[in-house]
Amino acid sequence: MSRTPDESELIADCFVRTPGEATLIGPGDDAAVVRVAAGDAGRVVCSTDTLLEGAHFAKGMPADALGRKALAVNLSDFAAMGATPKWALVALTTPDADKAWCKAFASGFFSLADRYGVDLVGGDLTRGPLTVTVQLLGVQEGPILRRTGAQAGDRIYLSGDIGDAAIAFSGVADAALTARAKRRLDYPEPRVRAGCAIARHATAGIDVSDGLLKDLGCLVGDCGAEIHIDRLPLGEACAQYCAASGDYAPALTGGDDYELLFTAPSASEDALREAVGGLPEEDAVALTHIGDIVASPGVRIMLEGREHETPERLGFDHFAAG
Amino acid sequence: MSRTPDESELIADCFVRTPGEATLIGPGDDAAVVRVAAGDAGRVVCSTDTLLEGAHFAKGMPADALGRKALAVNLSDFAAMGATPKWALVALTTPDADKAWCKAFASGFFSLADRYGVDLVGGDLTRGPLTVTVQLLGVQEGPILRRTGAQAGDRIYLSGDIGDAAIAFSGVADAALTARAKRRLDYPEPRVRAGCAIARHATAGIDVSDGLLKDLGCLVGDCGAEIHIDRLPLGEACAQYCAASGDYAPALTGGDDYELLFTAPSASEDALREAVGGLPEEDAVALTHIGDIVASPGVRIMLEGREHETPERLGFDHFAAG
Repeated sequence: MSRTPDESELIADCFVRTPGEATLIGPGDDAAVVRVAAGDAGRVVCSTDTLLEGAHFAKGMPADALGRKALAVNLSDFAAMGATPKWALVALTTPDADKAWCKAFASGFFSLADRYGVDLVGGDLTRGPLTVTVQLLGVQEGPILRRTGAQAGDRIYLSGDIGDAAIAFSGVADAALTARAKRRLDYPEPRVRAGCAIARHATAGIDVSDGLLKDLGCLVGDCGAEIHIDRLPLGEACAQYCAASGDYAPALTGGDDYELLFTAPSASEDALREAVGGLPEEDAVALTHIGDIVASPGVRIMLEGREHETPERLGFDHFAAG
Repeated sequence: MSRTPDESELIADCFVRTPGEATLIGPGDDAAVVRVAAGDAGRVVCSTDTLLEGAHFAKGMPADALGRKALAVNLSDFAAMGATPKWALVALTTPDADKAWCKAFASGFFSLADRYGVDLVGGDLTRGPLTVTVQLLGVQEGPILRRTGAQAGDRIYLSGDIGDAAIAFSGVADAALTARAKRRLDYPEPRVRAGCAIARHATAGIDVSDGLLKDLGCLVGDCGAEIHIDRLPLGEACAQYCAASGDYAPALTGGDDYELLFTAPSASEDALREAVGGLPEEDAVALTHIGDIVASPGVRIMLEGREHETPERLGFDHFAAG
């Protein structure tokens, strides 16, 4: 893992200070939570994520996919907190003023906004290198799911499957599989309603945006974790690649999956599965028990009952050099 | 005024739709206002503005000035609505991970954040062309001041003075004056508390970011306006340039001033001046009656009692070519 320069260190050193009393959750989680009025209804959730051409998406990404994904990655942050999105602001920088492109971008954005009842309330349009920064606002109707809170003995779960986005990036699969994996990369499915259901039973959660091991590292705190490679729910292309090569790096460190990684006590398993199983069909998602939180620090990766080596690079650092 | 491509047309065509019922003010004003809970305390205000190197600020702008200005331009949007800022998110894209630069950026940001009690609650740090997008959240304690609402007979007021930012850009003044004007450009003073005081008495308001005539055009609606060049409160460098050249374009179309332009009935003048005059010294600002809203459409510019020609270009369009 690249340590210098590191995004989280820079943020901690330069930008994190003691939060004010109306700030319930400040920097360091998937979204911030602030209080504008008394009671649970007075809690406002906000997050922001930037997608920059060349860093977060390839040149030539279809405009509708970009508009959709810019909202999806923020919705995924909300899902990881169990928050309900309501409003968005879009700061769009584009090199030209092509109306057809903007219309396609907007149609992708609204396809997801409409599904979750998100209202676009403002933004900023400037000319420059293609960049989208979405700010999402919403409310916290149920309990707030944080990154901290996992306890030794908790089970570790993953929603959906992971790894195909990394395969799409790497191009190691055959053409047909790569094309399907690329669709997973370009059109991620944020687990918004599953996140709200999970938050009522889970102890800690995060979305898998930077890679499973890196994101898991944010959940374990002073504890440790043991995860089992053979239990990992892998996308079709990733499963085929891993089986053929014996290289599990795309599954363990790939990122850009936008699935939910969370912990819950084993006693909550039935209630958890019932809550997620009761979602409408379009929000249905599988939950896989991939490992457990343990008392001793560090993340151990198990394969067929034996410890497997940990990849040197745990995940993707959008800020690291190269 | 550049008409093709035009930022507001593109936004209207691609991004503006019927707002949801919990959206009190959507796109098209200085900030959006949404409702999260019942009552005035349940109204949340949000805005976003992007500053991009080469478009909104020159390469080599000191990091502390950039951090401060990125917040200032959003605070100015809040001032124009009479809203109270509370929380900010910062999406910062920088080409390198220079900690000294980030610390200086943060110190500039916090200098203004602390003054107005704004808590930095989150953000995103990515590597790429230098760009800052700040999202500001807050509450609406008093009446919402909108861009629409001016009536024929209302007086048009301007806070502080304008024009020096344009002089700094153009470099038409001598070195000493340009240096002082540049400080006005780099360190604008958002009129946050004056905006809240003004909102209780004004009928419409906007901040002067794109140029006086362009921003005035957003206030007049179906009415018109008559403004008097000889009443315009000009910055030191701008006043000297205009007097020497007879060219008033920097004052009329310059932009980047971040003063408040607003309308109020003449009957409210005493109450208005009393409210703004009662602010603490650090928030004190002069108000100048620069003209009036009239029934007949169009903006007429008067100089020494005669109509003066309107500049071809009304203001700055950050999205226009060139």
